Amino acid sequence: MKTQVVIIGAGPSGLLLGQLLHQAGISSVILERQTPDYVLGRIRAGILEQGTVDLLREAGVNQRMDAEGLVHDGVEFLFDGRRIPVPLKELTGGKTVMVYGQTEVTRDLMAAREESRGRSIYGVSNVQLFEIKGDSPYVTFEKQGETCRIDCDYIAGCDGFHGVSRHAIPEDILREYERVYPFGWLGLLADTPPVNHELIYAHHERGFVLCSQRSLTRSRYYLQVPLTDTVEAWPDERFWSELKSRLPAELGAKLVTGHSLEKSIAPLRSFVVEPMQYGRLFLVGDAAHIVPPTGAKGLNLAASDVNYLYRILRKVYHEGRTDLLETYSAMALRRVWKGERFSWFMTNLLHDFAGQNDFDRKMQQADREYYLGSQAGMTTIAENYVGLPFEEVR
Amino acid sequence: MKTQVVIIGAGPSGLLLGQLLHQAGISSVILERQTPDYVLGRIRAGILEQGTVDLLREAGVNQRMDAEGLVHDGVEFLFDGRRIPVPLKELTGGKTVMVYGQTEVTRDLMAAREESRGRSIYGVSNVQLFEIKGDSPYVTFEKQGETCRIDCDYIAGCDGFHGVSRHAIPEDILREYERVYPFGWLGLLADTPPVNHELIYAHHERGFVLCSQRSLTRSRYYLQVPLTDTVEAWPDERFWSELKSRLPAELGAKLVTGHSLEKSIAPLRSFVVEPMQYGRLFLVGDAAHIVPPTGAKGLNLAASDVNYLYRILRKVYHEGRTDLLETYSAMALRRVWKGERFSWFMTNLLHDFAGQNDFDRKMQQADREYYLGSQAGMTTIAENYVGLPFEEVR
Repeated sequence: MKTQVVIIGAGPSGLLLGQLLHQAGISSVILERQTPDYVLGRIRAGILEQGTVDLLREAGVNQRMDAEGLVHDGVEFLFDGRRIPVPLKELTGGKTVMVYGQTEVTRDLMAAREESRGRSIYGVSNVQLFEIKGDSPYVTFEKQGETCRIDCDYIAGCDGFHGVSRHAIPEDILREYERVYPFGWLGLLADTPPVNHELIYAHHERGFVLCSQRSLTRSRYYLQVPLTDTVEAWPDERFWSELKSRLPAELGAKLVTGHSLEKSIAPLRSFVVEPMQYGRLFLVGDAAHIVPPTGAKGLNLAASDVNYLYRILRKVYHEGRTDLLETYSAMALRRVWKGERFSWFMTNLLHDFAGQNDFDRKMQQADREYYLGSQAGMTTIAENYVGLPFEEVR
Repeated sequence: MKTQVVIIGAGPSGLLLGQLLHQAGISSVILERQTPDYVLGRIRAGILEQGTVDLLREAGVNQRMDAEGLVHDGVEFLFDGRRIPVPLKELTGGKTVMVYGQTEVTRDLMAAREESRGRSIYGVSNVQLFEIKGDSPYVTFEKQGETCRIDCDYIAGCDGFHGVSRHAIPEDILREYERVYPFGWLGLLADTPPVNHELIYAHHERGFVLCSQRSLTRSRYYLQVPLTDTVEAWPDERFWSELKSRLPAELGAKLVTGHSLEKSIAPLRSFVVEPMQYGRLFLVGDAAHIVPPTGAKGLNLAASDVNYLYRILRKVYHEGRTDLLETYSAMALRRVWKGERFSWFMTNLLHDFAGQNDFDRKMQQADREYYLGSQAGMTTIAENYVGLPFEEVR
């Protein structure tokens, strides 16, 4: 088998890259370890930056998103019982975010892939990358007992934190940066109307709360919990009662509870590898970096990498600009580090850290009061939340 | 002896409070452990916030400051060899800072005190505060072997971190917040023209540098050094050569070296006590809070406390508004915590912390790049550097 770009991983970043390349007349094969249903079953983020929305529109997969997604002009912070609206649109010269679940984005991208007759191979195993430093890389994998080989020009590693792509780069080349946070997020999905029309990021002495949503009828709530907790220890009633205890009475009174569709505990981690390119292999999204979910940057940073890699590959194929290939890693990482910084800032700002001394706790409180009390401070939150601008590839 | 307000400490905050009270027709006695020459010999900060300048003008001690002080419209940051101007005036709607040494401020205030015939008693020892929770507080002290007593309405504790005032508040009432930083500042004062017309705050892998100044002919430079270093280990030549090694070549070439007038190593500490009031005792400045010097907030926060205490006492004596006395601590502390936050932020942003892991280091770098690369981020630095607005006392 032969193609121009092998994409490893059929999550949203692999599918989006495939769709953009297809539109540019560049062929790709997508390899995925899991089944389509498994991929769609993963509950993930739900907030798209302005730039991610624009990129999905450019990829022509915006029809359902634009019809069903909810544009949010603002977001709310809550601490010491005070609710503080952050008017994103007003503070960023008109930028907004879109509430539209990652599952829905993936579904739309799968449909587009099917329509474009792009090749996606699901259920593959033992994926191996060869000759990535040379001119003729290839990928082998097993499918139903048979070993297959695809020759290609370039490989995009869109296979997440646990994928194989990153490990194809020699260890002495890769540099890892990591922080593991001493708590987790317990998430609950329910078909209930959201407690507030905007998202609420809340600090409470009992721990962080996020009141999020997927649609006008589907809510997603998160509670900061100790990493030692298990989902079994959190029957729905306990979840709702704990959530209520961390919200002011007026909000708690509006909270509509219901049966959980999904409930899980996720650890929080910051992780980056440098470089994101090695020879003809390009790492994209979670394969190269993880952010804690505070600030909703995970999917958006993956889209950011896709944005840069797509524009570079288009210039490579259309204009022969192979010189750009070497710029991918540095360019992608500049934006990744900004997203890492914001996610780390938001996580530090809003969670309860057991190891803090009294002074640290006061500084955390002073940070909340300053950044949400000053116009300039609030603008730093708003401009990062809607997404910092992309650099131009030229 | 009897007076309306006993002020303990004849540093700039005690003297400024005395001068403002005098103008309002409120009598005071200032007690100081040291001699006037000793007080003037202490080398301290040199950057006055807009609000501090305004307060000194209100106190009528601005003649020499306005003639000799240097108004700075901007400040410069330096990291990774890049020089980044922060246009303070432009970013804050016209606010600036004034370069005018604390020693000069103190000298002007001493002259004003003399002119106003306000009573200052230097060289006192064994100062003790009595009945501060009652209606008739008094202070005793020894002078030349005799014990004296002053009866008063109120006591202002302007006697610094090592003073006695704070300790007059029962331990179970006071709450202390503290952070000690794992490095010191080695400062050198020299009669050489400053290397740059604006101050330069620099991050370097060998440690933080501040290129400051007291006038067009007097420079003040600081180097981050290990706390274990001694001044003896830093002869002038070593200081100048280390300073040069932490500056880009173009700046190093402009550096005029010279004999040091003073050289000392200061530890860096964040410290706050709450509350700042107990009965008829009011803590002011370093008696209640210390900031690390990064950001030049020490003297300015003391002036901030003076501002609030003076306005409250004026309303107490002129309008009988004794209800305001209880608001001092909370009002002063709101601004103190903002200043503590900024000083902590600036210290974290620019120093080398030995205990950092690679991720922490990257976050520190990302903070520098974000806050000095974004207009909103830079505005957060500028508005804090020139000084956040005072609350109105009413």
